Amino acid sequence: MAIDIQALQAGNSRALAKAITLVESKRIEHRTEAQLLLEQVLPSTGNSIRIGITGIPGVGKSTFIEAFGLYLLSQGKRVAVLAVDPSSPIAGGSILGDKTRMEMLSRSKDAFIRPSPSEGSLGGVAQKTRETMLLCEAAGYDVILVETVGVGQSEYEVASMVDFFMVLMLPNAGDELQGIKKGIIELADALVINKADGESINLAQQTRRHYENALHLLRHNTFWTPQVMSCSAIKNENIEAIWGMISGFKIDAIKNGSLQEKRSRQAREWMNKLLHEMLEMKLKQNPEVRDLLPHLNDKVTNGETTPYLAATKLIDLLFKSAK
Amino acid sequence: MAIDIQALQAGNSRALAKAITLVESKRIEHRTEAQLLLEQVLPSTGNSIRIGITGIPGVGKSTFIEAFGLYLLSQGKRVAVLAVDPSSPIAGGSILGDKTRMEMLSRSKDAFIRPSPSEGSLGGVAQKTRETMLLCEAAGYDVILVETVGVGQSEYEVASMVDFFMVLMLPNAGDELQGIKKGIIELADALVINKADGESINLAQQTRRHYENALHLLRHNTFWTPQVMSCSAIKNENIEAIWGMISGFKIDAIKNGSLQEKRSRQAREWMNKLLHEMLEMKLKQNPEVRDLLPHLNDKVTNGETTPYLAATKLIDLLFKSAK
Repeated sequence: MAIDIQALQAGNSRALAKAITLVESKRIEHRTEAQLLLEQVLPSTGNSIRIGITGIPGVGKSTFIEAFGLYLLSQGKRVAVLAVDPSSPIAGGSILGDKTRMEMLSRSKDAFIRPSPSEGSLGGVAQKTRETMLLCEAAGYDVILVETVGVGQSEYEVASMVDFFMVLMLPNAGDELQGIKKGIIELADALVINKADGESINLAQQTRRHYENALHLLRHNTFWTPQVMSCSAIKNENIEAIWGMISGFKIDAIKNGSLQEKRSRQAREWMNKLLHEMLEMKLKQNPEVRDLLPHLNDKVTNGETTPYLAATKLIDLLFKSAK
Repeated sequence: MAIDIQALQAGNSRALAKAITLVESKRIEHRTEAQLLLEQVLPSTGNSIRIGITGIPGVGKSTFIEAFGLYLLSQGKRVAVLAVDPSSPIAGGSILGDKTRMEMLSRSKDAFIRPSPSEGSLGGVAQKTRETMLLCEAAGYDVILVETVGVGQSEYEVASMVDFFMVLMLPNAGDELQGIKKGIIELADALVINKADGESINLAQQTRRHYENALHLLRHNTFWTPQVMSCSAIKNENIEAIWGMISGFKIDAIKNGSLQEKRSRQAREWMNKLLHEMLEMKLKQNPEVRDLLPHLNDKVTNGETTPYLAATKLIDLLFKSAK
């Protein structure tokens, strides 16, 4: 697959889409090609602000992203929306990235919306999304929104690939965490209470105070104190203030070096995760290991050998047959 | 180190102690020797009931184990007490296994008390304790008590190597989980409220009802419904009933096959854990990988290469230099 890198770097969305297809391809020769492409564009990446957005179904993520994205376009920004949705049952694409959800945004030439890759191999769907993010940056997008549903493990994966992680909530002070895991709240740089409109305005304010108090109890190890804000995406209210908060974060995080530090740490952690996955794959794909494994599994199951001896034999086999 | 296997299997505690020293040794030739020994004794293992005991400091673990152990001795059982204490700051042994804590028990020839190994390599302290457990079984001990403090990760490790996992608690109904992690309670086959004596008797009963209600909310996937009991180790009250519960569990679990099933699953999971640790160690110990790693770490940190490419290079190097 010949990718026109100059067109990509000039912001041509067809070249970008083709590059993403290459990155998402499962064919081994495409994988190598994709890595070479990524290394080539790497110097022109990193200039966006990477924003993760999560929230339970019904919180209004699409409406928020549409309103937020349109506001960013009005400020002259170019916006890419990516999705991480490992749970999607729809083959070949994700409901999350469905362009009909963000109709206005998808019509603009300065917005790029890409559904979640249907599956990934090494590093899973998150690996593809990380690589797609780099391609979008190379294509000059200023803001990358990475969206995920607030269920499962995908929130952790998104939090570990973005600069700023935002959790959308409903106005519902009494409802504790609304099904969001406590670990996710601890990762949030901001909680945004959406649907703060009509009869829910007072409730949204209560909810906001509730979470402000709750967040005080959590420790943070960066310069940034997580914020609680409210907005109404459908009425387009307070969207500007949310961008104000995030761009303020970005300016400070660049100035004090913490943005670069965070990205470096994320990259190193990701490298370690990939290393482990690759080792596991080497083991799984080794024909001799694959032959012996069921036999050793039986012996361990029946107490005929120890787990240690069985593991040692498999490792010896893996490194001998590599010779 | 020549181990007298016949003496070991005849229950000679000096031969047992020497075998454990071999298993705990960090020298590579001892490691191989230990594995051969374990494979030789394997057919005579598995006949004990393996009981894990945890609880926060101050709950009375030593007093409980002394009372429980003495009761078992009076029933003609031979008892081994092992400890898993990775956090122990004392080199060469653990405060947990200190024999002075279980003075009466340690004087009996039918009791064997072994402090926590000070450190482990592959599989950590838990690996050594698993192997020591097998040696104790080969030496004919009927009941193995594996003790750990209720902090950190060691409870999970103990729960994954025993047949029956018991959490000691204090009489304190209002105090929720008393610093015990919720995940630990979910693993418990029994909660035992110790110090149910004197003025605390009523409180202990309340605590017991409190946890009985709480446990009802938890799902269980075995035949066994977790029990809540109370006792006073220091007054030797209700110790017999606790043994009654555990021996009842053992009889049923043998009859319906779930004991064998649980042990088989534990062994397979342990094999997988060791496999991963061994792979990681291969990577760490490879001289070429070790040379290149800091350089690639820098490149990833500075955004000069992708985590994927860096990981691929390291893996290629590991398997090429094995050739």
